[in-house]
Amino acid sequence: MSVVDLARFMEDLATQSGAAILPFFRAHFGMDDKASGSGRGFDPVTEADRAAEATMRRMIRATLPTHGILGEEFGSEQTDAECVWVLDPIDGTRAFIAGLPTWGTLIGLTRNGTAVRGLMHQPYLGERFLGDGRSATIRTAKGERRLRTRRCEKLGDAILATTDPRLFAEGEERERFQTVEAGVKMSRYGADCYAYCMLAAGQIDLVVEAGLQSYDIVALIPIVEGAGGVITAWDGGSATGGGRVIAAGDRRLHEQALAILNP
Amino acid sequence: MSVVDLARFMEDLATQSGAAILPFFRAHFGMDDKASGSGRGFDPVTEADRAAEATMRRMIRATLPTHGILGEEFGSEQTDAECVWVLDPIDGTRAFIAGLPTWGTLIGLTRNGTAVRGLMHQPYLGERFLGDGRSATIRTAKGERRLRTRRCEKLGDAILATTDPRLFAEGEERERFQTVEAGVKMSRYGADCYAYCMLAAGQIDLVVEAGLQSYDIVALIPIVEGAGGVITAWDGGSATGGGRVIAAGDRRLHEQALAILNP
Repeated sequence: MSVVDLARFMEDLATQSGAAILPFFRAHFGMDDKASGSGRGFDPVTEADRAAEATMRRMIRATLPTHGILGEEFGSEQTDAECVWVLDPIDGTRAFIAGLPTWGTLIGLTRNGTAVRGLMHQPYLGERFLGDGRSATIRTAKGERRLRTRRCEKLGDAILATTDPRLFAEGEERERFQTVEAGVKMSRYGADCYAYCMLAAGQIDLVVEAGLQSYDIVALIPIVEGAGGVITAWDGGSATGGGRVIAAGDRRLHEQALAILNP
Repeated sequence: MSVVDLARFMEDLATQSGAAILPFFRAHFGMDDKASGSGRGFDPVTEADRAAEATMRRMIRATLPTHGILGEEFGSEQTDAECVWVLDPIDGTRAFIAGLPTWGTLIGLTRNGTAVRGLMHQPYLGERFLGDGRSATIRTAKGERRLRTRRCEKLGDAILATTDPRLFAEGEERERFQTVEAGVKMSRYGADCYAYCMLAAGQIDLVVEAGLQSYDIVALIPIVEGAGGVITAWDGGSATGGGRVIAAGDRRLHEQALAILNP
């Protein structure tokens, strides 16, 4: 592992997966209506997802053959290895389908089950969010900036984001989310992985979600933690496995929200 | 009016307002937590809104002194003029506050009460959506592409967008929206003005909203219509006044949704 520069290798994964995805984003823009029908003949998001994940898997196998891989599209291989790559080529498929630039490519690395490095890449915007649990940065064409969560002591001051309120199971799960939502200053829907990055950047204070897969969250943990935030499952344990997740920029806010989500 | 190139003047308004807004977007990114407190001392979105609208008003008064202006921040002047500019410097203030790039600057022009030209500018992305009711285009650093809505005959095939389902008044208004939503293939929240532009681009089929102001919608009408879409109030009349608005990429879809919204 020491021979390969992991930070640089992750950047290469981002560059290559981005190149695989971008031709499919907004692929129908400006297409002639009559020639293409409604354009429903192929499914750009699935094509892009698969092309990007296949590319990343090839690179990992060739460069780090002892590492495991867990990906959204092509499942698991060697996930009992010390180091496992956790990949979601397009997190935010609904945003992608709708042409909105708030999806991202998630590239995470676990070591002995702990998320140690993460990268969120938005190739259309040219934005990369990187974290290793100790620090986090955003890199764009204009340069690199440190990410820091902001202070927010009280739920009543918080900006909350969640991808879609309908993703909480009806009943207790949804009610608990709604209790948190009723207590915040503002809530915002539809951000997917982008919400965690904006939390790391000090723009959002709280993200609450449910029904996540491991590959939806692993890459984001080292970014949130590296920026000074707290990210756990609703039961206070590790968020690495997905499921119900809560992230907060301020530890005190995390405690308040957790007291509602896990009474 | 013939002396001034209106298309070019609108572009100048976009360029100048974008320059006024951008320094405020993500202004707290990477700020030191201790130095800035929580960064709540000033309100970037209000500052940006006002700076941008003041800039555009100055330019309109200087160049087209007989034209009226209706803006979100500074109200109305000469709105009985033949030509009236309708301005919303930051449509999608919640997105702006949360650091998400799905807000936009709306610059519309009405002539005798009809929306004749519109521009939506996303300065962070460098995207401009332009329409004059007969054609519509997107312009980026990579060039210009024609926008065309896509065919979508049936509600069951449609991708629907709305800014926030809580913006529909509880009772009949919300129930009617929910009936439409229950019939579509997929719905997406949180897009604001961006949703109408993605409808014009053939990525989204239907946008349904309520509680809009005139300045939230006037600029988008010539873009949607120029791309081949239909945009009206829920009662089938003009959308120029705001309120309850429905836009569809396909006329047949517009009819189906309208039958539910206005039974």
